[in-house]
Amino acid sequence: LAVVFGMAVAFAPVPRITWEHRDVGLVRFHEPGVFNYSTLLLSEHKDTLYVGAREAVFALNALNIAEKQHEIYWKVSEDKKAKCAEKGKSKQTECLNYIRVLQPLDTNTLYVCGTNAFQPTCDHLSLTAFKFLGKNEDGKGRCPFDPAQSYTSVMVDGELYSGTSYNFLGSEPIISRHSSQSPLRTEYAIPWLNEPSFVFTDVIRRNPNDTEGEDDKVYFFFMEVSVEYEFMFKLMIPRIARVCKGDQGGLRTLQKKWTSFLKARLICSKPDSNLVFNMLQDVFILRGPWLKEPVFYGVFTPQLNNVGLSAVCVYNLSSVEEVFSRGKYMQSATVEQSHTKWVRYNGAVPRPRPGACINSEARAANFTSSLNLPDKTLQFVKDHPLMDDSITPTDNRPRLIQKDVNYTQIVVDRVQALDETICDVMFISTDRGALHKAVSLENGVHVIEETQLFQDFSPVQTLLLSSKKGKRFVYAGSNSGMVQAPVAFCGKHSTCVDCVLARDPYCAWSPHTTACVTLHQEHGSGRGLIQDMSGDVSACPDKVQGSSQQHFFKHGGTAELKCSQKSNWARVVWKFQNGVLKADSPKYSLVGRKNLLIFNLSTGDSGVYQCLSEETVKNKTVSQELAKHVLEVKVVSSPPVAPTLL
Amino acid sequence: LAVVFGMAVAFAPVPRITWEHRDVGLVRFHEPGVFNYSTLLLSEHKDTLYVGAREAVFALNALNIAEKQHEIYWKVSEDKKAKCAEKGKSKQTECLNYIRVLQPLDTNTLYVCGTNAFQPTCDHLSLTAFKFLGKNEDGKGRCPFDPAQSYTSVMVDGELYSGTSYNFLGSEPIISRHSSQSPLRTEYAIPWLNEPSFVFTDVIRRNPNDTEGEDDKVYFFFMEVSVEYEFMFKLMIPRIARVCKGDQGGLRTLQKKWTSFLKARLICSKPDSNLVFNMLQDVFILRGPWLKEPVFYGVFTPQLNNVGLSAVCVYNLSSVEEVFSRGKYMQSATVEQSHTKWVRYNGAVPRPRPGACINSEARAANFTSSLNLPDKTLQFVKDHPLMDDSITPTDNRPRLIQKDVNYTQIVVDRVQALDETICDVMFISTDRGALHKAVSLENGVHVIEETQLFQDFSPVQTLLLSSKKGKRFVYAGSNSGMVQAPVAFCGKHSTCVDCVLARDPYCAWSPHTTACVTLHQEHGSGRGLIQDMSGDVSACPDKVQGSSQQHFFKHGGTAELKCSQKSNWARVVWKFQNGVLKADSPKYSLVGRKNLLIFNLSTGDSGVYQCLSEETVKNKTVSQELAKHVLEVKVVSSPPVAPTLL
Repeated sequence: LAVVFGMAVAFAPVPRITWEHRDVGLVRFHEPGVFNYSTLLLSEHKDTLYVGAREAVFALNALNIAEKQHEIYWKVSEDKKAKCAEKGKSKQTECLNYIRVLQPLDTNTLYVCGTNAFQPTCDHLSLTAFKFLGKNEDGKGRCPFDPAQSYTSVMVDGELYSGTSYNFLGSEPIISRHSSQSPLRTEYAIPWLNEPSFVFTDVIRRNPNDTEGEDDKVYFFFMEVSVEYEFMFKLMIPRIARVCKGDQGGLRTLQKKWTSFLKARLICSKPDSNLVFNMLQDVFILRGPWLKEPVFYGVFTPQLNNVGLSAVCVYNLSSVEEVFSRGKYMQSATVEQSHTKWVRYNGAVPRPRPGACINSEARAANFTSSLNLPDKTLQFVKDHPLMDDSITPTDNRPRLIQKDVNYTQIVVDRVQALDETICDVMFISTDRGALHKAVSLENGVHVIEETQLFQDFSPVQTLLLSSKKGKRFVYAGSNSGMVQAPVAFCGKHSTCVDCVLARDPYCAWSPHTTACVTLHQEHGSGRGLIQDMSGDVSACPDKVQGSSQQHFFKHGGTAELKCSQKSNWARVVWKFQNGVLKADSPKYSLVGRKNLLIFNLSTGDSGVYQCLSEETVKNKTVSQELAKHVLEVKVVSSPPVAPTLL
Repeated sequence: LAVVFGMAVAFAPVPRITWEHRDVGLVRFHEPGVFNYSTLLLSEHKDTLYVGAREAVFALNALNIAEKQHEIYWKVSEDKKAKCAEKGKSKQTECLNYIRVLQPLDTNTLYVCGTNAFQPTCDHLSLTAFKFLGKNEDGKGRCPFDPAQSYTSVMVDGELYSGTSYNFLGSEPIISRHSSQSPLRTEYAIPWLNEPSFVFTDVIRRNPNDTEGEDDKVYFFFMEVSVEYEFMFKLMIPRIARVCKGDQGGLRTLQKKWTSFLKARLICSKPDSNLVFNMLQDVFILRGPWLKEPVFYGVFTPQLNNVGLSAVCVYNLSSVEEVFSRGKYMQSATVEQSHTKWVRYNGAVPRPRPGACINSEARAANFTSSLNLPDKTLQFVKDHPLMDDSITPTDNRPRLIQKDVNYTQIVVDRVQALDETICDVMFISTDRGALHKAVSLENGVHVIEETQLFQDFSPVQTLLLSSKKGKRFVYAGSNSGMVQAPVAFCGKHSTCVDCVLARDPYCAWSPHTTACVTLHQEHGSGRGLIQDMSGDVSACPDKVQGSSQQHFFKHGGTAELKCSQKSNWARVVWKFQNGVLKADSPKYSLVGRKNLLIFNLSTGDSGVYQCLSEETVKNKTVSQELAKHVLEVKVVSSPPVAPTLL
């Protein structure tokens, strides 16, 4: 008769600042009548943002997306639409052409695929003329039939790697490479792909310093129905799969199939609190000169009992590679004739290692191509594509757990703070049209701000980051349009304390210009600027005594004194002649949790009223005067009319 | 790159009315220095409530628990306490005597067991002298060693049935019967009990109309670590187990062990919304003359991703019996030497059916006692105590799902509304010291009210209902004390509309006395009373025009007009001269979401202000005038001092 409740879960705090739609002027793009701005491609050297929407592709000025450079429409013919409707699909929504693939083919051509009324088709888009070349390639396996189905693709050296469904019903999933020389695909079998939802794919090039003759690898992120766990109903499991660019398929076994397809579980959970994030929503690969290896950022939500929980988990490439190159495999066993159970495979593993790329060692043993791999290796990888070991996140737990929000997409920027420490800034979008900006600091994650990108609260479907020096923007697409947001709103912080308390690595206080400036858009050194990622405001110059406002009120009346404060973490305190006032007494009341009402004024209420904000950072409370009012209550000598305040 | 969010989950609305601790005067009992009021026993014919707490047992007047009739202390000796502390337990908390068993032995004796500093001990409490008889029985197997561990017990015909742990470490779980003639227990084996948490037990007597010679049965409710599902970590599964009162154990196989121990999964989930409630918190058995069979009410929370979700599921006895008497069994199979998988057993089942009580059919086949059951049957039940079929709730879904709350305990009252329909009223406590009262109506569950029972928000550990006519109370125990609450607060509803909108089956409006009265405490018929469980207020007499309040204000001042409304579902609307006012304009503001502030008064503001509450019940909006104010603004002829409203 006793069960313990309560979990010590460290949820991230609410974002410190909330920028409403009206607070910030964001650049927008929306073409009347065009919806589903879902596929983005940025050309950084041309400063052009290509946008694939429903039945249209746009080229926008990446520095100001409101400026449309080109547009081209790709509509479904009435004939096709009618045929699609005949098959029971909606003419108004499903039987249209949703652009799902937008990849660079060469400097002057884009490769574009659309669902095309359940007849996926691809074409080449010439960027010089901004015209389709009319190739009309069959898009089966590159682009889904159904706009509601998941998809992912990446162009690697002119060959398209994609994860999508292969048929009208969407029942045959496929991960494939479209190549004239060596097209490859997955087996159509449960151990390979079991009702997957594709999330993301990208290539990771071999390390130039690598001495083992490794290959470039293409990683696929998806989730699929679990085979290794058994639950009350279909349990989704997030996965990472890997194929080698040099894969040529097998000669007999696995002919025209991947010989290097291996997949593993991605773990994003907090078992001590029974939190299980198993719905993978998006992945971002952070790479760059500062990093010794690429890092995968994944956004997750729970499948079970989700009433608004989201998490970000981070994985190192090396921990992924460790599992694929040295981990144990899983095998299936049949129980009592009719049940299948997947367990760790403890037997002998053939050489070369099944699923491995052809490297120096394999070449030395005369296996120069997947085509001459031994049958034993191929048969093994065909039967054992799933690893038993899982990929665990760095620090063995989510980087960030947030309540009351469903995260949809993520991009990550790596910036240098003023003190030269490196910060990873996460921009994470929600299903309510907002963008959270969070930074990993020593003692946890700091959620700097939340920006309402879309006024209609429509889910953010796609995010893209441009981190070119001086041109850092986040682009977001939803069903209704596109938004371009700066990476920071430094200028909105009007005092040094506000600027430092923001703990935004992009922002620093310039005592010279008495303004909160954007660091990476400033030329020259950061000398003299003030920033402290721990929120220590002691470097700020003593606050210049703010001017006070003077008010006259009549005896018996009511006064409303204003005060404004952006931080959701600050507490507003009112003082009268230096004594703290108790709001919500019969005498005082707070309106909108900030403004002070004083009822039934008498001459004793004359004096100085201060509005202070108190915010605690690292156990230190920072107090700031937000407003000062001087009140004078005058007795009006006249036959008094008794004021009846109820 | 596309995943669908959002679930169409029908959460129950917030309770319609919230009674704060100060709103309702509840009868309380608390003995200074005594904590953990966890074990309750009601003697309805004596009107006495027995309370087992830490190191004490009290007899309270059940009609007024503030009145203590008797008390007896049972403290741990200093010597024992020291020995307990030597074993690494806390002297201040764990090495005390927590009363865990309080059961009637005969009309004048209670059977009492306590943890007794990790040396569980039982004694007889004479009710005539209110003294322990000093029996000092070993309580092992009846009462846990550790006060933090789960326990449940019930006295049936002088024999104690209990579920608890059997050793100091709490690692050996046991369900047993303590009997001089035929003591029985469970096997100590994973298939029987796998790290269980015991929740509830009670006997259900054979149906007096039964012709199959069935036995009385004792049901145990608990949860344990799943063997049938495989998850990322230990998954708890709620279970119901059943033993027969006539069980005597086996002769060779299962000697002194249950031959009738069978258990099955209790399902409480909503698969279409991925909601899984697998943590069983409490069970209540509803029985009575109105019911054709007993009904089990279970309170559940989720184990996974629980940030405040609770559910109530209801099960019929017949659906439980169906599974035990005709369902399939589970069997375990070994996979690859080291893994165990539980699957449905499809082979032949021996006769008599394993785990069945000895009934007429068995007797006719000469099996008059479990002692002469064939070895095959006994070996089978020993290996297959778990059923493959699950117990599904009525309507195949939870009766109630509530957000932002952790339910702990439940009692259910069955009452007759004025129109003679039968209503099941659920009283469900929370881990924050509150009590929810909900009623199942045709179109779903209506949460009538929430009452803050404990001011310190301590979790409600135990609930008990007394439903004697005219003496209906809910008793609640927490770590800090006891509370006695009436089943309804009818008198708090001051108008007919309020009384009817409450949709409380206990309450009806008496036009005669112009008061909202408690139905079942009224003598005589309900003739002339008004109640409508669908919330139709049309039977209420036309509201007598409420008197209005007159106010005079000075020009330029601010007025605050009051209004009060209890319903959390109602919207407050202010009208001026019959036009709806827009609050939160520069002219008007709402304080506390109800009272109206009018700024900068001018003569044009003179007139009639009405505060209305609007509440929508079954798509019909009921509007009620809550307050009426007549305002007169007077210009004071004097040299004006400009009022500066900011």
